[in-house]
Amino acid sequence: MKNTFGSSVALTIFGESHGSAIGAVLDGLAPGIPVDEEFIASQMDKRRAAGALSTARHEADKVRIVSGVFGGKTTGTPITFIIENQDTRSRDYGELAYKARPGHADFTAQEKYHGFQDFRGGGHFSGRITAGIVAAGAVALTALRAKGIQIGTHILSCGGVWDRTFDNYKEDISRLSELEFAVLDDEKAEQMKAEILRAKQNSDSVGGRLETAVTGFPAGVGEPWFDTIESVLSHGLFSIPAVKGVEFGSGFACADMNGSVCNDCFSGGESITSATNNSGGILGGITSGMPIVFRIAVKPTPSIYKEQQTIDMRTGQTTTLTINGRHDPAIVHRARVVADSITALTLCDQLALRYGTDWLADIK
Amino acid sequence: MKNTFGSSVALTIFGESHGSAIGAVLDGLAPGIPVDEEFIASQMDKRRAAGALSTARHEADKVRIVSGVFGGKTTGTPITFIIENQDTRSRDYGELAYKARPGHADFTAQEKYHGFQDFRGGGHFSGRITAGIVAAGAVALTALRAKGIQIGTHILSCGGVWDRTFDNYKEDISRLSELEFAVLDDEKAEQMKAEILRAKQNSDSVGGRLETAVTGFPAGVGEPWFDTIESVLSHGLFSIPAVKGVEFGSGFACADMNGSVCNDCFSGGESITSATNNSGGILGGITSGMPIVFRIAVKPTPSIYKEQQTIDMRTGQTTTLTINGRHDPAIVHRARVVADSITALTLCDQLALRYGTDWLADIK
Amino acid sequence: MKNTFGSSVALTIFGESHGSAIGAVLDGLAPGIPVDEEFIASQMDKRRAAGALSTARHEADKVRIVSGVFGGKTTGTPITFIIENQDTRSRDYGELAYKARPGHADFTAQEKYHGFQDFRGGGHFSGRITAGIVAAGAVALTALRAKGIQIGTHILSCGGVWDRTFDNYKEDISRLSELEFAVLDDEKAEQMKAEILRAKQNSDSVGGRLETAVTGFPAGVGEPWFDTIESVLSHGLFSIPAVKGVEFGSGFACADMNGSVCNDCFSGGESITSATNNSGGILGGITSGMPIVFRIAVKPTPSIYKEQQTIDMRTGQTTTLTINGRHDPAIVHRARVVADSITALTLCDQLALRYGTDWLADIK
Amino acid sequence: MKNTFGSSVALTIFGESHGSAIGAVLDGLAPGIPVDEEFIASQMDKRRAAGALSTARHEADKVRIVSGVFGGKTTGTPITFIIENQDTRSRDYGELAYKARPGHADFTAQEKYHGFQDFRGGGHFSGRITAGIVAAGAVALTALRAKGIQIGTHILSCGGVWDRTFDNYKEDISRLSELEFAVLDDEKAEQMKAEILRAKQNSDSVGGRLETAVTGFPAGVGEPWFDTIESVLSHGLFSIPAVKGVEFGSGFACADMNGSVCNDCFSGGESITSATNNSGGILGGITSGMPIVFRIAVKPTPSIYKEQQTIDMRTGQTTTLTINGRHDPAIVHRARVVADSITALTLCDQLALRYGTDWLADIK
Repeated sequence: MKNTFGSSVALTIFGESHGSAIGAVLDGLAPGIPVDEEFIASQMDKRRAAGALSTARHEADKVRIVSGVFGGKTTGTPITFIIENQDTRSRDYGELAYKARPGHADFTAQEKYHGFQDFRGGGHFSGRITAGIVAAGAVALTALRAKGIQIGTHILSCGGVWDRTFDNYKEDISRLSELEFAVLDDEKAEQMKAEILRAKQNSDSVGGRLETAVTGFPAGVGEPWFDTIESVLSHGLFSIPAVKGVEFGSGFACADMNGSVCNDCFSGGESITSATNNSGGILGGITSGMPIVFRIAVKPTPSIYKEQQTIDMRTGQTTTLTINGRHDPAIVHRARVVADSITALTLCDQLALRYGTDWLADIK
Repeated sequence: MKNTFGSSVALTIFGESHGSAIGAVLDGLAPGIPVDEEFIASQMDKRRAAGALSTARHEADKVRIVSGVFGGKTTGTPITFIIENQDTRSRDYGELAYKARPGHADFTAQEKYHGFQDFRGGGHFSGRITAGIVAAGAVALTALRAKGIQIGTHILSCGGVWDRTFDNYKEDISRLSELEFAVLDDEKAEQMKAEILRAKQNSDSVGGRLETAVTGFPAGVGEPWFDTIESVLSHGLFSIPAVKGVEFGSGFACADMNGSVCNDCFSGGESITSATNNSGGILGGITSGMPIVFRIAVKPTPSIYKEQQTIDMRTGQTTTLTINGRHDPAIVHRARVVADSITALTLCDQLALRYGTDWLADIK
Repeated sequence: MKNTFGSSVALTIFGESHGSAIGAVLDGLAPGIPVDEEFIASQMDKRRAAGALSTARHEADKVRIVSGVFGGKTTGTPITFIIENQDTRSRDYGELAYKARPGHADFTAQEKYHGFQDFRGGGHFSGRITAGIVAAGAVALTALRAKGIQIGTHILSCGGVWDRTFDNYKEDISRLSELEFAVLDDEKAEQMKAEILRAKQNSDSVGGRLETAVTGFPAGVGEPWFDTIESVLSHGLFSIPAVKGVEFGSGFACADMNGSVCNDCFSGGESITSATNNSGGILGGITSGMPIVFRIAVKPTPSIYKEQQTIDMRTGQTTTLTINGRHDPAIVHRARVVADSITALTLCDQLALRYGTDWLADIK
Repeated sequence: MKNTFGSSVALTIFGESHGSAIGAVLDGLAPGIPVDEEFIASQMDKRRAAGALSTARHEADKVRIVSGVFGGKTTGTPITFIIENQDTRSRDYGELAYKARPGHADFTAQEKYHGFQDFRGGGHFSGRITAGIVAAGAVALTALRAKGIQIGTHILSCGGVWDRTFDNYKEDISRLSELEFAVLDDEKAEQMKAEILRAKQNSDSVGGRLETAVTGFPAGVGEPWFDTIESVLSHGLFSIPAVKGVEFGSGFACADMNGSVCNDCFSGGESITSATNNSGGILGGITSGMPIVFRIAVKPTPSIYKEQQTIDMRTGQTTTLTINGRHDPAIVHRARVVADSITALTLCDQLALRYGTDWLADIK
């Protein structure tokens, strides 16, 4: 489906960057889950990432919940999140109405929507639309946490600077939940920020990698074909704008290993574990009970201030474009909370499909 | 859905490695498409990849089509492919019935199916089930080719040896269609084969990377969110057993680029193109008309002949296991035709959703 | 899916009777369709049906469109309709919080949502939620009309009074679009109204039948199995609260016919038609080009003012209940525009699946 | 989706009347359910209904299960049923290749499939394709029975003769399971048979009504909108060829009731019940724990031996047609087991969605 993701727990998103409001409808989440508006607000703040590293556009991103919550808890019916757009500068979009920004969806939108798309600020393709995902994801994260399932994402690399990988999953995830700039190694965090600012000064932008871990997730969830856990997670993750790669466990590095190295040997006893986790917690498409671990590649923000060659969509002829406006020199630090949210929503769906719609509910 | 993939054009697969038959039902493909049984057979042969590089199990993989084809053409109703299993050695499976093979789905299947799964030869998790995908994919490939859309996959790396990347897409794809071992550089092909045999001699296995290109695909297909072309392709590709990573265009390498390098600048004129293709032919989730390009990581075959530590699933205690039987020292060369097939099926579905169920049909 | 209906064109609805707002997200409709806010308002008025025949609750039902419309036309991305609830009397719900109203969903909601449901005014089960369907349906109706497809529903019976059936489809549908109380025979209309008022005076309610016709719909749309046109229409129609029966063409009366009477014999020439239309325009699940005709049964409003026996959901014991509040003595006259809307949305989806997402678009 | 029905438990069907085989793939059913091949065969026999009342075509309808069953129990992976077509008389179809049989799908198939459809014996539209549904339904019925859920369908009317309605649900259902001609009143059964034979002698056919009851089904299953139990059941039921109406509980008769009569008043105590069941066990789309009851209208078999007016599809001109071949003078007695099967499959899906994929499994 188009703007709906998930089957038993499903998210529908809507809105345009410079429309009157954006938002999301989260359907199928179990009843009785506490809706913590403060936590939602804090997740929205992490996505906004106000400051020198991000866009100068100022949006309060205040979330109004208009349905599906009663007495502070989910009812089990659709939860609707509405976020009004406020700082949408009324102005002449000029040549952006017909010149395709390189790296953006302007040209492909034109091919799909024949000129009827709202082109202002990227319209429905804008990263701003992820705000609805983050609001809904906050409720999903709360539901999972109550079941002992924790999700955390850090910036593994940005502008060529690399963070350390996960060490102690639980501690690291807990720490990440408090960080605004999600890097485990403080020194590397500062170096990354410096790289982002340097790109900004150069009228350029940088990309990066995110690494996500999920702990406490039960074994036996997922399907052997088509709806493998890798399939459904990647389906969601590749919806995040700018994501161009997803790998699980050792991912592409597996391709260079021998089987004797890549295989995670099981250990028994109180619980079934493995010393290595090259599989990223997924075997045959089904969770093994080991932490689910994956990495995604985020391309550099396509909006840069350098002059670029492009086409005039009215004539199909080559021309040049210099973008003005308010843009991020990097989005990897903002995308991190979107990755957490998509992961939480996807896993809630898988749990509901496997164990039923009440599994996440707070029923005695 | 579980064993069904696609929406307008949908594939359902079934079967177990040592059951009586495996197969697939392909629904929703347009009417009037020629069904070339010789081409299907040749694709099945590429998947079987008989010889020293592959399993010693001998299956004719003869495809019987029992529905959906009339007068040599598709009718528009479900096409059913049945492949009888023949070389299923009747024997005592012994400890494989309760010892989980590392890197395999034995343990996760047990967690999901509670011991009722058919464990013989990996059961429904076996790579053998991809035969149904390849049979259906052959018809999809034929349908696309008639519309000028070509798909080809080569082994980009195997056992540490790298092929050259695509040079002239059309020529390379045409050449790949004739190769049994799909490597563009002949010398590298021989080196890869040597690596696979070396792993075999060491009772070990090797992994690799596949690179796929699609040419002639129209611009404007896909969705901005959730059903982005990357999302739906990765959903299918991550169903191929052993795939642990998927990246589009420059993929993970984008993470290290500046925006000014990563952006593909458009050129106009007779058609809209770009000199670079870091986006892999997809912007904002929608096709741009440039070749769709992606790479997948294939982990080494988990069945190796070395003794490995594992668990006894009856007791949950640690034990050791030495696997016998007939196994592949590599599967990357066999997975290549599966990648082509999944790609063809996914794209047929996207085209039918975008342009309707008759678009691929042979109607004057 | 739960609150989402449709595949290529999909509607998601949300809200509770006494929550802060209700609404809908309409996704997948083609770009370039004019959004006529006046027509939407007139459809909302028909659903509200203010006056003595309906609830005393007063809602302006003003529709705010927050996304998916740009320059007065659809963009092709999700269209979101928000309707604020205004006349939600703050009061003590008293025993309605735990006594199940007979004929209502109070008890089944309790079984499903474990007490977390918003019980006020029926919550998410309220007929009020159909307002979102009607808003979205208005846009779908506009899109279809531009393609020569007309939909109209009349009250075939109410409180034992029967309207005449369709005579000249096009004229009748055109006339119905102007009627507030959709009865073709004026005299019967007055008699029905009298029956509704009489039921009201008796603290009781009445049910009725609706009959819908669709003209101008192309032949060859639908599927032979599972997604037959009857299947997808009935799926939507049975979502309308209080609908307990759906029949196509001659429907249940077919059961008493001989084949020689029931078969609609074809006539050729300029177009393929049949003198009779017992099939209701659908053969083998696929449209024939004849008008699509169906009837639905609407049960009497369950909220009546007589004392009724029921249970106390806290104890599970038998008790009695007398309902106060503002309720409709009949809903069949209000459901009529909901039937039109569901029909329009379902058919837009079927057309998009058959002919692609652009078929309804205004593209030269 | 086209030939796939269901979400968590999904059935895919395939085949043509005169193709080489027909069948079905049942996916998502829980593991550990006993597969009783004798019961499957007895259900197939009820559908075949050999004898004077039915077609003279003789098919053994032997079901071969090629996947998804291991050690006599379901594995949890797709179960594939294959039924070879045997009695497909090789002959010249003559004018049936281009003359549209009235009441059949010949013309609509032509509009949809452009002449590529397999027209022989109705091809994919043939009632014969229900054999796959019945085979799969038999396994679903077994799974439900183990959970105390019983389903039974009787012929409520045929050729103008009416059976009594359900009296004691459990006893009646138990009795129906043993009857070949499913009529509760023996005398009425003989009268119905006489009517069918009389129609046959007149080169004509008769229709009828089926009434289905489900007992032991838990309360709280279903959705308030779109996936109401009425919606999903009617979706499946309207796929059965010749079904033109579906009504739940008192159905169309509700339209003539007052609310005070139609409302089922609850009684508490050990369990929550109601003396009447006008709702058919469904309130607000969700099951109430009362028996689920519905009726479907089956039109008379369209294949009759009288000369009929129709069109020549090659020219679009009016012509006449006299059908020969082997046809049923009624199908209502054969459709009964298809109704049971569709009901069982739909309810298994709903239970899996509500309570998870293991709910029906035999796990200690």
